[in-house]
Amino acid sequence: MSQTSLSTAPPRGMRDFLPQETAIRDWASNTILSTYEQFGFTRIETPALENIAMLRRSEGGENLQLIFEVLKRGDKLERELASGQLNRADLADLGLRFDLTVPLVRFFSNNQNNLPFPLKAIQIGSVWRAESPQQGRFRQFTQCDIDVIGIKDEMAEAELLHASAEALLSLHFENFKIRINDRRILSSLVEQCGFTHKPDSVFIAIDKLDKVGMDGVRKELQDDGHPKEAVDNLIAILQGFSMDAPFEKQRQCLPAATDAKVVDGLQRVIDTVGKLSGGRYETVFDLSLVRGMGYYTGQIFEIGIAGYPHSVGGGGRYDRMIGKLSGRDVPACGFSIGFERIIGILMERGFVPPNQSRKVALIYDPERDEIKAVLQAAQNLRSKGHVVSVQPRKKDMRKQLDSLMSFGFGYHCGFRGDPDNLELKELRA
Amino acid sequence: MSQTSLSTAPPRGMRDFLPQETAIRDWASNTILSTYEQFGFTRIETPALENIAMLRRSEGGENLQLIFEVLKRGDKLERELASGQLNRADLADLGLRFDLTVPLVRFFSNNQNNLPFPLKAIQIGSVWRAESPQQGRFRQFTQCDIDVIGIKDEMAEAELLHASAEALLSLHFENFKIRINDRRILSSLVEQCGFTHKPDSVFIAIDKLDKVGMDGVRKELQDDGHPKEAVDNLIAILQGFSMDAPFEKQRQCLPAATDAKVVDGLQRVIDTVGKLSGGRYETVFDLSLVRGMGYYTGQIFEIGIAGYPHSVGGGGRYDRMIGKLSGRDVPACGFSIGFERIIGILMERGFVPPNQSRKVALIYDPERDEIKAVLQAAQNLRSKGHVVSVQPRKKDMRKQLDSLMSFGFGYHCGFRGDPDNLELKELRA
Repeated sequence: MSQTSLSTAPPRGMRDFLPQETAIRDWASNTILSTYEQFGFTRIETPALENIAMLRRSEGGENLQLIFEVLKRGDKLERELASGQLNRADLADLGLRFDLTVPLVRFFSNNQNNLPFPLKAIQIGSVWRAESPQQGRFRQFTQCDIDVIGIKDEMAEAELLHASAEALLSLHFENFKIRINDRRILSSLVEQCGFTHKPDSVFIAIDKLDKVGMDGVRKELQDDGHPKEAVDNLIAILQGFSMDAPFEKQRQCLPAATDAKVVDGLQRVIDTVGKLSGGRYETVFDLSLVRGMGYYTGQIFEIGIAGYPHSVGGGGRYDRMIGKLSGRDVPACGFSIGFERIIGILMERGFVPPNQSRKVALIYDPERDEIKAVLQAAQNLRSKGHVVSVQPRKKDMRKQLDSLMSFGFGYHCGFRGDPDNLELKELRA
Repeated sequence: MSQTSLSTAPPRGMRDFLPQETAIRDWASNTILSTYEQFGFTRIETPALENIAMLRRSEGGENLQLIFEVLKRGDKLERELASGQLNRADLADLGLRFDLTVPLVRFFSNNQNNLPFPLKAIQIGSVWRAESPQQGRFRQFTQCDIDVIGIKDEMAEAELLHASAEALLSLHFENFKIRINDRRILSSLVEQCGFTHKPDSVFIAIDKLDKVGMDGVRKELQDDGHPKEAVDNLIAILQGFSMDAPFEKQRQCLPAATDAKVVDGLQRVIDTVGKLSGGRYETVFDLSLVRGMGYYTGQIFEIGIAGYPHSVGGGGRYDRMIGKLSGRDVPACGFSIGFERIIGILMERGFVPPNQSRKVALIYDPERDEIKAVLQAAQNLRSKGHVVSVQPRKKDMRKQLDSLMSFGFGYHCGFRGDPDNLELKELRA
C-alpha cells in the first residue's frame, strides 16, 4: 500500500543537510578540531541520551524545561501505565542532552582515573532542545565546546580564548572582539552598590543593557523593588564605564573594595590574549557582560563579530559544578563556539570549502559500456589524484553537464578509446 | 546539596569514549569518508529524531520493536494523559532513528529537486536501538552507509563494493572476502524446488546454514511444515554448491530455469570487482547469503574477514523502498560498513592512528611563570609544526612525565630561558 500521505519533511524544528551545506559543516568542524588539537586538546564523546535524573538535577536553568524525554520501555512502562496515579515525570527514564557541559561533568566524574589530568577536552556534537522553532532556533543543533578541567590559574582562561580565537581566524573570521568579565566582580559590584536581595535579578537586568539601554535597566531594577540608592549607584558606575577605555582606566570605575586579585587576574588574561592576538582581534573588559548560566564562578567571556548582533562564542569558569556531582571540587573552565551561527555566516557569505582535487564526472553509456572497463578507467583517474564519480549518460547532455557543474564538478570525460588516457574537459557555463 | 548518590555511569548499553578510543574512531571515520569522497560520494545528514509515524510504517523488521520513543510535550501530552483511554502508542510523537536507511529514503523523497541525480550519498551517524545489552551490542552505535540512488544497472553494485573494499584496505584490513547473492535467485530457487508457502521462512532457514549446518537447515524446514520433496531438492542444491568453485561451475548448480539475466548480472559484478581488487581481496557468489531485511529486491552482499565470525559490512539493492514512500519507484542500492566491528578489531590490534606532529608538553610553574610568556613560547613551538599542550608542573615530576607519555606525548620541555629556543626532551620509559 502506498502511503504518500505521510509527510517527508524532517520533524518540526529539525533539518536535513544537503551535500553543499554538509561540506561546509564538515570543513568547519574539522578546521576547529584541528586548531584545538594543535593546543593539545583531545576529542571525547558521550552518548546523546543521559539518565533523566542526571539531566533534571543539573544546573541547566531554563533548558530543563526543554528536554526531549524518552519513554520507558516494556514492562517498566506497563507498570507506570497500570499504576492508579500516573505521574508524567515517571513516564521517562532517559532524555536527550540539551548541552555538552552536563555530560562532560558526568564523563569526568565517571572516568577521571583513566583520563589525563588536567583534561583538555574537545566535544563536537548534537544537542536537542524542544524550543518553539523561531528564526535561527533549531531543535537539534551542533555544539562545539572545549574545556580545561584541573587548572585553577588563569592559564586555562587565556588558553581557551587564544585557541578559540585561532579557530575563528582559521574559519576566515576577523574583526572580532573578545569581551571578558568576572562573576566575582559582578557580585561585589552588586553588593557594594547596596542591593540587599535577589542579586540574580540584578545580573539579569545588567545583561539586558545592550538591548534595553540604561533607562531600561533602571526601570527593570526599580520594577523589581530594589532600593533606589542601589540602583542609582549601579547606573552611575555603568554610565562611567567604557568598554573601549584602557584597562587601567576601566578598573578605576570599580568600587574601591573590589578584590584586587580578581581584577589583576582579569588584566592578566586581557594582556596575554591581547599580546597573542598580534592585533588581529580585540580583547576588552566588559563590565556589563553577565551570561545566562548560573554555574559560572569566575571569569566569563563572549566573542562578537562586527556587523552581527549575536555572539559567536562564549564560556567561563565553573569551579563548583564537578564537586556538586562527585563530591570533590575540581576547577574547570570552558568555551563554546557558536557553531550554528558560524555556519549561518559562512553560508550567507557563499563560502565554498577549499578542495585540492579536481572533481571529474566520468560519463558512461549504460547500454554500451562494460562496467568493468569504466570502473577501471575511473580508478586510473583516481590514481592521478582526481575525485571521480561515474555517471550514467542522460538524454539531455547539456542539461546533465549543467547539473554536474552546479553540484561542484569541474571536469567531465566520456568513456571512449584508451581508458588509460581519457581526456578531461572543463565544465563551463 | 551534594547528590553523590547519583550514578555517573552513562545510560545502560551506552558508552563514554575516552580520548584514545575517540582518536581511533575519528581516524577510521575520516579514512572511510575520504575514500568514499574519491569516488564522488558526498556526505549528507538527517536529524537523529524522526516522526514516530515515519519510523513505524517503515520496513524496519524487528528494529521496530526497539525504537526509543520520545514523549509528547506540553499540552499535547496533557491531553493524552487526561483522555480516559490512555494508549501507549499515543504518548510519543518522535523516535530516535534505528538505522540510516529509513531517514535516507525520507531525505531523498523530501529533497530530490535539490539533489544531484543519481545521488551518491555517504552517511556516518549514530543510531539507537533499545536492545538487551549483550556482548558487543550497544544501544547507541555508529553506522556508516553509502547509497547510490538512481542507477538501475550493476554499475551501482560494483562501485559500492569497489569503494567499500578500498575503504577497508585504507583501514589496514586485508584478506577479506566479499560474498554476493541475489534475492531474485533465492526466490526462483525456492519456487523451483517446489516450496509452496512461506518463502520467507525458507530464506530464514538458509540464512542459518553457517551456524546450524545442513542438517540443521533440513530440520528447521521440516519443522516449518514444508513439503519433503522441496526440502530435499533445496538441500541437494545447497550441498552441490561450493562458494570456492569458479562462477561458471557455480551457476550450473542453479535450477535451469533461473533467470539468465540475473545470473549474468551477478557474474558481471563478481568479475568487475575481482578485476579491480588486483588480488587484494576475494569476491565470490554465495548461494546461502540471505541478509535479514525484507526490503532487498536484487543483489545482496556481505564482507567477512578471515578469523572473525561476524561480517564487517553488508548491503544490497532496494528498488521499491523509495516508491513506497514517495509513490514513484527510484532504483537504489546501499552498503553499510560495520563501523563498531571495525573499531573493535582495531582496538583489539592495539592500533594507534598515525600522527605526523610531535606532541609536546610545555610544563610551566603556576607559582612563578608568567602566563603571557608561557603561551607565547607555546605558540612559537606550534609555529614549528608541533602539537603543544601547556601543563602545570606537578609535585612528582617523574609521575607527571610517565602520565604524559601514557597519553601520547612524545616530548616535554620546561619553561626557562629564551622562549624562542626551548629545548625539547624526548619522553622515555
